[in-house]
Amino acid sequence: MSTVLYGAPGTASMCVHWMLIELGVPFEFVTLDFAKNEQKDPAYLTINPSGQVPALVIDGAAHCEAAALLMILAERHPERGFAPAQGAPDRASYLQWMIFLANTAMPAFRLYFYADEGAGPQNADATKAQARARIEKAWERIDALLADGRPFMLGERMSAADFLLTMLTRWSRNMGRTAMDWPHLARYVARLRALPSYRETHNREGLEGWI
Amino acid sequence: MSTVLYGAPGTASMCVHWMLIELGVPFEFVTLDFAKNEQKDPAYLTINPSGQVPALVIDGAAHCEAAALLMILAERHPERGFAPAQGAPDRASYLQWMIFLANTAMPAFRLYFYADEGAGPQNADATKAQARARIEKAWERIDALLADGRPFMLGERMSAADFLLTMLTRWSRNMGRTAMDWPHLARYVARLRALPSYRETHNREGLEGWI
Repeated sequence: MSTVLYGAPGTASMCVHWMLIELGVPFEFVTLDFAKNEQKDPAYLTINPSGQVPALVIDGAAHCEAAALLMILAERHPERGFAPAQGAPDRASYLQWMIFLANTAMPAFRLYFYADEGAGPQNADATKAQARARIEKAWERIDALLADGRPFMLGERMSAADFLLTMLTRWSRNMGRTAMDWPHLARYVARLRALPSYRETHNREGLEGWI
Repeated sequence: MSTVLYGAPGTASMCVHWMLIELGVPFEFVTLDFAKNEQKDPAYLTINPSGQVPALVIDGAAHCEAAALLMILAERHPERGFAPAQGAPDRASYLQWMIFLANTAMPAFRLYFYADEGAGPQNADATKAQARARIEKAWERIDALLADGRPFMLGERMSAADFLLTMLTRWSRNMGRTAMDWPHLARYVARLRALPSYRETHNREGLEGWI
């Protein structure tokens, strides 16, 4: 079995990179150089037509969308329990939070970091301000979820949603208010980013901050 | 077993309403009046803290996020095959397209219809124009998928992704270019919206156009 992850340090590929390391499966990490626009290279577009990272090629079959890749990997390794089994009590919550992060939090970050896309370059600051407000609303919502002291989004067991959320909290590190400004989220993040597999991912990608 | 869907005609609840009708399960449909801001009512916020539709309450447990609700319902009715089983060859595609629609297409529609949210009311027109461009890029991507003549997103079998995509194509009906301007998508939509369960949903919600 061959597994190849296409990504770039600190981008949306990070959560998938982290899960691969945590799962302990052998894989190759191919770094795309955004400065050279390698994610728009015709050869890469045959792997991911969106021209974005991550893409995960398993035995020659290409898949994309970070949240989907986490779900795919979690299902391929049921022994680790990163996706509650169908019919399990926390299954609906799992799907709901994966979609919430993919549909609400991630698009707000996309507009924050690619603010020109929102309403043109001339309105980038306004787009960024609104995106930040939406990100903070998402933190508020998740902080309320974590307020009962649960260690993970779904409760006592780590799931794919935690890989995704922890990565997203890192993306807030240079904002006016970071995820650490929400008390329950701060406790959550402190524990998750202390995991050896997270630190290993951080080191392999040569990242700074949020550790 | 009790199933209650909270929604409003023609909104994101429609795809869930449609699947419930297609599945033939008994359910109650509670219409929220957006003109009266009922989706922000404190009682409803205990069901869906996002203050959005849909919400689906199954045996007293509330779930939200349209794409997640489709996945939850599909899994609860495996006999209909609207979610490929874990390990099936089209499983990864299923997850990928559900996330693509939730993460790329839906947020672009949200910005189109709630353009004030993008970069403030003063930049609503610019936000709308950019959102439209992103929606058209999504149609292009999906049109390429359907170019091999497949009847459904995953191939020969209808899945939750088709409920979501067909609803989204309807949302383009008053745009400069609708989904029908892409030839393979046009063929797809024409067949999907002709399904008796789609027409029944259309009629029950009192909708106009796109039939």
